Amino acid sequence: MRSILMSVLLCALLPTAHAQLSEAEQQTFEDAFERIIAHALTEEHTWQLLQELCTVAPRRLSGSPAAAAAVEWGRKTMEELGLENVRLEPCLVPHWERGPRSELRLLAPEQATGEELPLLALGGSVATPEGGIQAEVLEVHDFDELAARADEVPGRIVFFNRPMDPTELNTMRAYGGAVNQRTQGAIEAARLGAVAVVVRSMTTRLDDVPHTGGMRYADDVPRIPSAAVSTLAAERISALLQKGPVRLHLLLSCEWHEDAPSFNVVGELVGRELPDEIVVVSGHLDAWDVGQGAHDDGAGCCHALEAVRLLQELDLRPRRTLRVVLYMNEENGLRGGRAYAAAHEDALEKHVLALESDRGGFTPRGFTSNANPEALEILQSVANLLVETGAGTVFPGGGGADISPLGPSGVVLVGYLPDGQRYFDYHHAANDTLDKVHPRELELGTASIAALVYAVAEMEQPLPRNPVED
Amino acid sequence: MRSILMSVLLCALLPTAHAQLSEAEQQTFEDAFERIIAHALTEEHTWQLLQELCTVAPRRLSGSPAAAAAVEWGRKTMEELGLENVRLEPCLVPHWERGPRSELRLLAPEQATGEELPLLALGGSVATPEGGIQAEVLEVHDFDELAARADEVPGRIVFFNRPMDPTELNTMRAYGGAVNQRTQGAIEAARLGAVAVVVRSMTTRLDDVPHTGGMRYADDVPRIPSAAVSTLAAERISALLQKGPVRLHLLLSCEWHEDAPSFNVVGELVGRELPDEIVVVSGHLDAWDVGQGAHDDGAGCCHALEAVRLLQELDLRPRRTLRVVLYMNEENGLRGGRAYAAAHEDALEKHVLALESDRGGFTPRGFTSNANPEALEILQSVANLLVETGAGTVFPGGGGADISPLGPSGVVLVGYLPDGQRYFDYHHAANDTLDKVHPRELELGTASIAALVYAVAEMEQPLPRNPVED
Repeated sequence: MRSILMSVLLCALLPTAHAQLSEAEQQTFEDAFERIIAHALTEEHTWQLLQELCTVAPRRLSGSPAAAAAVEWGRKTMEELGLENVRLEPCLVPHWERGPRSELRLLAPEQATGEELPLLALGGSVATPEGGIQAEVLEVHDFDELAARADEVPGRIVFFNRPMDPTELNTMRAYGGAVNQRTQGAIEAARLGAVAVVVRSMTTRLDDVPHTGGMRYADDVPRIPSAAVSTLAAERISALLQKGPVRLHLLLSCEWHEDAPSFNVVGELVGRELPDEIVVVSGHLDAWDVGQGAHDDGAGCCHALEAVRLLQELDLRPRRTLRVVLYMNEENGLRGGRAYAAAHEDALEKHVLALESDRGGFTPRGFTSNANPEALEILQSVANLLVETGAGTVFPGGGGADISPLGPSGVVLVGYLPDGQRYFDYHHAANDTLDKVHPRELELGTASIAALVYAVAEMEQPLPRNPVED
Repeated sequence: MRSILMSVLLCALLPTAHAQLSEAEQQTFEDAFERIIAHALTEEHTWQLLQELCTVAPRRLSGSPAAAAAVEWGRKTMEELGLENVRLEPCLVPHWERGPRSELRLLAPEQATGEELPLLALGGSVATPEGGIQAEVLEVHDFDELAARADEVPGRIVFFNRPMDPTELNTMRAYGGAVNQRTQGAIEAARLGAVAVVVRSMTTRLDDVPHTGGMRYADDVPRIPSAAVSTLAAERISALLQKGPVRLHLLLSCEWHEDAPSFNVVGELVGRELPDEIVVVSGHLDAWDVGQGAHDDGAGCCHALEAVRLLQELDLRPRRTLRVVLYMNEENGLRGGRAYAAAHEDALEKHVLALESDRGGFTPRGFTSNANPEALEILQSVANLLVETGAGTVFPGGGGADISPLGPSGVVLVGYLPDGQRYFDYHHAANDTLDKVHPRELELGTASIAALVYAVAEMEQPLPRNPVED
């Protein structure tokens, strides 16, 4: 049982946790953290930034005019906040548009004919023919079941209906356990002759909000249209299938365009003693083309921006450089993350740590990190000073998609970990809007992140690096 | 700094935390907890109960028909859930009504004349005369400032405008630091000749939602009308006062009635070996007469009901008796809590522990307890098995208002502690409605509570009692 593991981990970490910070450092950090937290909660400035981003550039999918507006907002905001070395770093991004029309209707059984079901094309899907696709539905729950029913697949719309596991406490793990239906479903179904794919939305809620997200094609199988239906619509289709055949009409008008030029947005608080040693603090600027990307990942961008602004305003310029990176194209390509790693390849040995916030703006639970044991212990000793914000624990884990290309070079990766119970209510959906973000919860994330990156950029001894992967 | 204290506390508790449970017990608890959590998250039944309560008996202030409906719902629900020894235990409760009319309008300055400001009478306030009260406003922030300006008070409406401290991470402490304006303001202001009191709402949000709550009078000073204004209205009044005198028109039509008969609702899962040893698990059934009392404290009632139902359904009948108590009259009298302590006086030495959930239905943070060090260590060893629900820490603290009368008899008191950042958005206000409660967050509270009370009712050695107070 994982809870034991966690307890053991806590027990193992805590007693020696302060061993690695000098008393002077600990006192410095405590004093700084107290100021950071008080200032953040008094101003609630992260929320103001997020309000701007959600207003100026909602639905900022890579390649869109909104994404370009978000880049411009990021640059302008960094300059207004007084960050240094503000610049745009280029990357080429995929450019997909869902187009003006989408529709999912029941054609059979007779008593349901004409019913519309809430859907969103999956990101990257091809369009249907202009008149749509009409076909019978085959419901399956995983690829084994699909394979076992291979002879029923040809000519059908395959309906993947495996819910996220509600018993999984960690909703990110529940997502991980279900999302291959969305990402790989079109490949597996097309390989067996399906004409389209409909996937149950990746959410723990039972409601009528469809959730989009990335999907892939393979070169050796036909590209078939793919869309997500709301969980209630999924239940509806499934219930009708209990009684007899179900036929659907699916219409999508998606379009693929040429790759488009775009940018990561970068700014710094230059280190006062070791300016070439870098601590990255980041989020991703792109978002899906529905809603406002408030939690995913407007929150993370504003966490990063405001964490560094807070330090600057409080005259807490650390020894090493803090570099804010607002990555482009996390959602459907990771081109920004890869471009950053490539452009800074020669400097990665001087990257001490990279933190990303990309799990929403909810109340803090801690951090995740791939750090080596010694570094993990130091990070935990810092987090111990953040128990009251809720961010008192560093769990083993990854950092975030955009910073993952830095890992092989030995950069310690850290993810900010907020509470995850509400995250998939809004993830990749039209309801991921500003009103779902709580100003104090958001701000506690900023303060926790500011504290951690400040400590790592300020500590006398550099954080021990991870081994370099070949 | 408190965060240090907390770290030290954690360090002190965790390494020895498992020492007090036998290996067999720990294994039993782990297995049970895993089943409890999985079952709770699959069914989300707590939310269904809460939906019923919010529908059947919103605005269930003591003495009201809604409170009577809530009692009947509690009794019927316990019987339907299969609890044993279901009964109503009588108590006499205050009966106050806010009445049909309330109004707060600006009379001066001229440019603001006629503006209405959102307000709610404080619970227990007397009415104004039928035509209302018209008077000039004196703004103060605490009782010292009030005393210093004593000569300005006569004939005025005193406006208490000290916000909850936003820098306080623990919102309950921030509430504690501001609430004397609401509870004692009318006494202090009337003592110096004020004609009415207007109080800034107790919330961390800046919005137009007024928050009510209890207030007191003293026998030796006049009873003056008292109301809460929204925080935005408080800011408005304060801004106008910067420029010159402000006059308000205040109208309240509150009424006091005779004390009314009411009840605590009680039901049990009788212990299989030690039925006369009692573990209380509780919430309070009454709520303010606005909104639905969804978080305060419908959530707590449903936590308690469903925690015991879960155990019953999973065949986890513990050694000792689990007793669900849905208290009446927490909000404006605590008569239910006192009645329970009095009625069960002779049995309190057999009350091993009393837990109350009265801080909302948000994602778990842990528990608070007044337990003696030995018992605290045992409770922490149980909570260590709940790290993944978020409820892995037992903080020193109180239990809850309704169970506090049990404390002097040596009963260990425990409060369920959910995340507190959103609580005061909805506390005692019209927006405390079902849609503010997240099904999974609520259910994680149920599971955490079920786990803790199961362990305490099941453990071989009884939890060490606190010293009896004389």
